Amino acid sequence: MKKLSKVVFLIFLFSLGKLHAQELRVEPPNWWIGFENQELQLLVHYPNISQAEVEMDYPNLSIDQIHNADSENYLFIDLSLNENTPPGEFNLKFTFPNGEVVSYAYSLLAREKKGSEIHGFDSSDAIYLITPDRFANANPENDIVESLLEKTIDRADDYARHGGDIKGITQHLDYIQDMGFTAVWPSPLLENDMHRASYHGYAITDFYKVDPRFGTLSEYENLAKQLQQKDMKLIMDMVANHCGSEHWWMKDLPFSDWVNYQEEFEAGEKMPTSNHRRTTNQDRYASEYDAAEMQKGWFVQTMPDLNQQNPFMAKYLIQNSIWWVETLHLGGIRQDTYPYPDKHFMADWAKAIMTEYPNFSIVGEEWSYNPLLVGYWQDGNHNYDGYRSYLTSTMDFPMQQNIVDALNQEESWDNGLVKIYEGLANDFGYHSPKDIMIFADNHDKSRIFTQLNEDVANTKMAMGLLLTLPRIPQIYYGTEILMDDTAKPGDHGLIRTDFPGGWKGDEVNVFKNQGLTETQMDFKAFLKKVLNYRKHSKAIHEGKTIHFAPFDGVYVLFRQYEEETVMLVLNKNEASTTIVLSRFEELNLNGKEFTNLDSNESFIWKDELQLNHGIHIFTTKQ
Amino acid sequence: MKKLSKVVFLIFLFSLGKLHAQELRVEPPNWWIGFENQELQLLVHYPNISQAEVEMDYPNLSIDQIHNADSENYLFIDLSLNENTPPGEFNLKFTFPNGEVVSYAYSLLAREKKGSEIHGFDSSDAIYLITPDRFANANPENDIVESLLEKTIDRADDYARHGGDIKGITQHLDYIQDMGFTAVWPSPLLENDMHRASYHGYAITDFYKVDPRFGTLSEYENLAKQLQQKDMKLIMDMVANHCGSEHWWMKDLPFSDWVNYQEEFEAGEKMPTSNHRRTTNQDRYASEYDAAEMQKGWFVQTMPDLNQQNPFMAKYLIQNSIWWVETLHLGGIRQDTYPYPDKHFMADWAKAIMTEYPNFSIVGEEWSYNPLLVGYWQDGNHNYDGYRSYLTSTMDFPMQQNIVDALNQEESWDNGLVKIYEGLANDFGYHSPKDIMIFADNHDKSRIFTQLNEDVANTKMAMGLLLTLPRIPQIYYGTEILMDDTAKPGDHGLIRTDFPGGWKGDEVNVFKNQGLTETQMDFKAFLKKVLNYRKHSKAIHEGKTIHFAPFDGVYVLFRQYEEETVMLVLNKNEASTTIVLSRFEELNLNGKEFTNLDSNESFIWKDELQLNHGIHIFTTKQ
Repeated sequence: MKKLSKVVFLIFLFSLGKLHAQELRVEPPNWWIGFENQELQLLVHYPNISQAEVEMDYPNLSIDQIHNADSENYLFIDLSLNENTPPGEFNLKFTFPNGEVVSYAYSLLAREKKGSEIHGFDSSDAIYLITPDRFANANPENDIVESLLEKTIDRADDYARHGGDIKGITQHLDYIQDMGFTAVWPSPLLENDMHRASYHGYAITDFYKVDPRFGTLSEYENLAKQLQQKDMKLIMDMVANHCGSEHWWMKDLPFSDWVNYQEEFEAGEKMPTSNHRRTTNQDRYASEYDAAEMQKGWFVQTMPDLNQQNPFMAKYLIQNSIWWVETLHLGGIRQDTYPYPDKHFMADWAKAIMTEYPNFSIVGEEWSYNPLLVGYWQDGNHNYDGYRSYLTSTMDFPMQQNIVDALNQEESWDNGLVKIYEGLANDFGYHSPKDIMIFADNHDKSRIFTQLNEDVANTKMAMGLLLTLPRIPQIYYGTEILMDDTAKPGDHGLIRTDFPGGWKGDEVNVFKNQGLTETQMDFKAFLKKVLNYRKHSKAIHEGKTIHFAPFDGVYVLFRQYEEETVMLVLNKNEASTTIVLSRFEELNLNGKEFTNLDSNESFIWKDELQLNHGIHIFTTKQ
Repeated sequence: MKKLSKVVFLIFLFSLGKLHAQELRVEPPNWWIGFENQELQLLVHYPNISQAEVEMDYPNLSIDQIHNADSENYLFIDLSLNENTPPGEFNLKFTFPNGEVVSYAYSLLAREKKGSEIHGFDSSDAIYLITPDRFANANPENDIVESLLEKTIDRADDYARHGGDIKGITQHLDYIQDMGFTAVWPSPLLENDMHRASYHGYAITDFYKVDPRFGTLSEYENLAKQLQQKDMKLIMDMVANHCGSEHWWMKDLPFSDWVNYQEEFEAGEKMPTSNHRRTTNQDRYASEYDAAEMQKGWFVQTMPDLNQQNPFMAKYLIQNSIWWVETLHLGGIRQDTYPYPDKHFMADWAKAIMTEYPNFSIVGEEWSYNPLLVGYWQDGNHNYDGYRSYLTSTMDFPMQQNIVDALNQEESWDNGLVKIYEGLANDFGYHSPKDIMIFADNHDKSRIFTQLNEDVANTKMAMGLLLTLPRIPQIYYGTEILMDDTAKPGDHGLIRTDFPGGWKGDEVNVFKNQGLTETQMDFKAFLKKVLNYRKHSKAIHEGKTIHFAPFDGVYVLFRQYEEETVMLVLNKNEASTTIVLSRFEELNLNGKEFTNLDSNESFIWKDELQLNHGIHIFTTKQ
């Protein structure tokens, strides 16, 4: 019965002529010569394409195999390049039994850079995370696109589109760079042709198409190029776990196992969702039942769970990622919901990318407060099951929580600043702590200012610490002006509030420092100072870390590289506090001159320091 | 000035003639032939012994070196045995310049067993932890010993001596064995000649002497022998970190660095205590300052911190441990305050023991709820700093806390039974989870019945789970009758309440099942059944573990070994609950007969189970 309903469905489409109206889809739409992996698999989608004969003629390029799918409208073509394959274009010609011919001009491009020249982000970077729909609307023309399902724009609705776009980011790169950031991570910019709440970008409906409301591929390429000219990096937010339910292939799935629970989907049933028991990836004792529920269950009803165990799906996703890295010369990938797809596929995916781009970076999102889980995913970790992730970076949810707890809690033996001290001690469990991404908040978490109960001094402490730790810091847009979600803490729409000044007519304009409160101006200036210092600080990028157990409400951390010392002091006491410097004797700082990064005041290291409540960053560098 | 005061001190002692009244002390007091390590270092203590000439004559035994100490009253003599050294006795003769001769008849014994025949505890064991002063007073004669400092006995005072002794344990081995335990761990039985609160045993004042209030060495040996005859194991509680401030050597320290902060001690100052920042052992960023404070600070004012970096102290402690293993044919060591001494010494210590006894077990106490720290100490763990502990077992404080939280918390997505599920998932971070010791409480922690708010069903769940996990379970004496410290939760004296029946005239007598409430009788019977089943259960000792994410207030864990399956169900619902068995399909249990361990009722595995609130342990074994 299920099979019948599928056939009926196809006939219905044919009778409307919809599929014929559809263009011949070949993906990846182009490729490059000179990759390590000389194989290429093309997905071809066109009505009855499986009945067509395939022809092409190009030097040093051969068709290895042509695979039929379960749907007649797909072909998967395996091509082999070799070291002598020239760049150029060839015709991929499909001849149907009735004589009809369709063809696709396929480009094999020369690579502009060697793979090893594509550098990922690292601890010398500071990343600005942007929700593009909410950052700046440079092109109101693309706010509503009639061909897409969600056509409204409503800045008063937290879950509607607000009109921000790629151009809006590109136009403000000077601002971002001046602030001291060296990398930009916009959440996904690919087409989300969904009925509603499509603004966030995580329900991708075409893995090769920029969402027209955000702009065009050439605008995306331009953003990448502008960033490169500024010596900044573009990080692409990718999703291998799922797509949006309006993805084009959901109407004509190539295989019977293209998505998980496909039978249930085709029967129109309510989809089983993931049990979200992420520990099943690591647990020695996890049942197969729980592991399958975790991995195969849909993230939500509107996000079909891709089956990466289908080898064609696996290749599709890997090639898609490489296509984007190569097209945009990315400075890194952020992979969404990392523990949800098949972990062995994720390793293959990361390995394929890291093989082509050995100096690249990929950060995976494991939303866990357990450092054991976070550590498991970082390449180089010695895992009991031999699992090797090929993932350079993971996200430091544990330390994020520790920082918030440290500042919100009253000081005691095991509460308060000791959470930072003991949290950081857990770094011994990580293969490479400095390659882990730290953040105070992001697009899914309450704004740090709200998490810290709108305490400005505490928020400064959190951000200053973040930028001093042996980590890759990520800061969410708007943190510089203390954006909050206090009205409805944790509300996703509210967290992703419009950035003031990004819209024509905004009364407050952060880019122009218009309409900001004194507190906001001060906080922004503080962040800017620390970020810009950090930009050139070897001590912070790769220096030694030495910290001291919290004592008397004060936590002290040093970073040191050759002659440069950075000293961070977090003083939670309301009253001015005397810090006796003999405790730090092992650092040999006697007689050295230190400057307060914020106030520019200097002192010579001797007996003691008298410090007010809050954060103090001192440095020997002039 | 400090040196002067020391000299004055010695003169003072001489003038009283005290040192001359003292016996010649040679430690270890005897040794054995046939160890892997053929070296032996004797500590000799006697007034002005450094002025004496040392003589001895024995085949295949040579003096390698004689070391003077800082105090004239010590000698350290390095001896070398070889494979031909015969067992026997020789005279160690000391001739003083004034002609005085003292001598010591030193025995080199033949070993009764090979080192490899001494087996430590493992996951097939269940350990009964006893506070000897509080378990049973078999010999009232030794309750007060006039030669010792603390002379009172007062059962009404939680911190006074109550009179329990070694014989009290020995007399009740049948009870302990019948309950289903296979090993006994009494807290330290060595001399604690302290002014007060000497009952707990952790302030040792002579590492080679049984506390006379507990009994004699031959009584200790008899306890060991009785246990061996019952195929049970004796675990000795050792303390390498500190001694009691009344230790004999504290009045005449051999070296100027025999204990940490010795200068301060000799000057009569208040002693710096440890900062207890145990993470300094692992922390990549710990300051030398904090690490030194942690390791060198005294545990408390009355417990001098031994300096294991003094090579003579290091050898002394290692030889002392081997002496006890060999004397008692121990079934394991429990080492107190494991992260406090120098960790490299602890590795040398454990390595020395494990080299002599390759099938032995040592469990170290790291009181931390962080599995990363617990895992670091277990031998086989892949530590970032290359540290190898040689320690077979650590203590599962994290899982202990998880179990209590799981039962006390209301069920929700991330509270309640999921604490057990996710806590156990952390086992992927351990090298060998089944060699880790699990417990519900101990002599330092509130009684489990109190921790669980005197909820009997929850206490049964905790204990039943404990005995089913891939772990070495330890149960504190009195848990079988739900002993509590609810009147003053966490009070050490109260936690260590007298075991009813251990004292003549006790109205309640657990050994004879007299005066127990129905609840106590039922709980004791439950524990006894599970312990005795566990004793012969390969599934629990070494079977595969499979567990299922908590669902609907129910957690299910299986252990499997060949044909034996043990199924544990924790049902937190007050109402009877239906468990649909199809979820456990992967275990292939259809048609198998299961018996409820507690009720003896049977069922055939089919569609579902109807289960009441509480714990249910089913097994296929008849």
